[in-house]
Amino acid sequence: MENKRPLILVSNDDGFTAKGISELIKFLRPLGEIVVVAPDAPRSGSGCALTVTTPIHYQLVRKEVGLTVYKCSGTPADCIKLARNAILERNPDLVIGGINHGDNSATSVHYSGTMGVVIEGCLNGIPSIGFSLCNHQADADFSPAHRYVQQIVSAVLKDGLPELVCLNVNFPDMPSYKGIKVCEQAKGFWQKEWETCPRENGKKYFWLTGEFTIVDSDNVNSDNWALRNGYVAVTLQQLM
Amino acid sequence: MENKRPLILVSNDDGFTAKGISELIKFLRPLGEIVVVAPDAPRSGSGCALTVTTPIHYQLVRKEVGLTVYKCSGTPADCIKLARNAILERNPDLVIGGINHGDNSATSVHYSGTMGVVIEGCLNGIPSIGFSLCNHQADADFSPAHRYVQQIVSAVLKDGLPELVCLNVNFPDMPSYKGIKVCEQAKGFWQKEWETCPRENGKKYFWLTGEFTIVDSDNVNSDNWALRNGYVAVTLQQLM
Repeated sequence: MENKRPLILVSNDDGFTAKGISELIKFLRPLGEIVVVAPDAPRSGSGCALTVTTPIHYQLVRKEVGLTVYKCSGTPADCIKLARNAILERNPDLVIGGINHGDNSATSVHYSGTMGVVIEGCLNGIPSIGFSLCNHQADADFSPAHRYVQQIVSAVLKDGLPELVCLNVNFPDMPSYKGIKVCEQAKGFWQKEWETCPRENGKKYFWLTGEFTIVDSDNVNSDNWALRNGYVAVTLQQLM
Repeated sequence: MENKRPLILVSNDDGFTAKGISELIKFLRPLGEIVVVAPDAPRSGSGCALTVTTPIHYQLVRKEVGLTVYKCSGTPADCIKLARNAILERNPDLVIGGINHGDNSATSVHYSGTMGVVIEGCLNGIPSIGFSLCNHQADADFSPAHRYVQQIVSAVLKDGLPELVCLNVNFPDMPSYKGIKVCEQAKGFWQKEWETCPRENGKKYFWLTGEFTIVDSDNVNSDNWALRNGYVAVTLQQLM
């Protein structure tokens, strides 16, 4: 019977020990058989990057009825490729990334390792969803997202998604939400992106940082507007 | 007078010593002032990845009239961010990635560090173009691309590109081309993506590899068809 349940492949970019993926697993367990293949350390900002210059490896962390967890030395996209090709015995019914500590809205989505997971699933014809919370803290409260994760995942398990379309779902950092809003990506840009990091050897060192400025903050159809106004923002990402 | 020439920012994912970027610089020099900020080592498969867990650094490699070359320890997208925010004195008129050793056509484009360069430029409102050659060899012959690079770059310098649209240009591995064809991305998927790499410590090690299978090989509008038939394939990538 166990094998007839939907197989849900889960990964993230904050690493397998993050609270966000633990909470996601908890929300998803009633909906299917869960296999986690997630990075062994934080991999934020990975985008769709792959590891091509070194081998990668994976290890079993935990196995119990309905849940198997592996950690992997690769990027988020590597995790999905490795799971599909070398770990799982059947193709997953769903690929889910998250829940990310920090939002993946507006045009910043291109750098997102969470969406790297999702794009890798989507390119392989598997319905795929990314979840992110607008709170970067390690102990952020993911509980308001519980029923929305289950509602969205159940709907996609039932109806699927169009070819080469995946979902990017962002939750506001609020104790409850007004509902779900299907949005477009807000437009914006990063400024002041580097902080100098002096070192006395003649090279110039910099830490990535930055401030994101929204250009179309009045656009009531944008994910940014939805998040500011207490809605769960769902954007459809078309991969070509 | 020098500063009135268009400022063209160049990077790649094969590293600053690659033949592809050297050839690109040669082709571009008549068209403007060239500043190169490119990775200090190969960074293939970087996509839009950013370096967030360590500082990055850059160093001047070469400076002469009309050309300045820096190497950078970051990803291709880092190079563009760092150039814009910490190196260049004015905003570039154009961002160019390439010429990549190996094609960036079909849906594989999501993993491309060359297109990571281009997307970073495009997200910042700068007309941006990626060039790739369908030949992975270190000593590939880029010379047939010469006049097409100049033609496409001149046109974009003159007319710009629509907001959040960038160009992905792929050259066939042939001694001459039939012309330019504006295409859509072919659809396809990777198979047999991992090669085992045995090691006696209980972990499972894998090298990334794979075979790309085109799904719509009869689609005469696809980049894959154009490249197989001797055309320079130009696809427009819309970033939202």
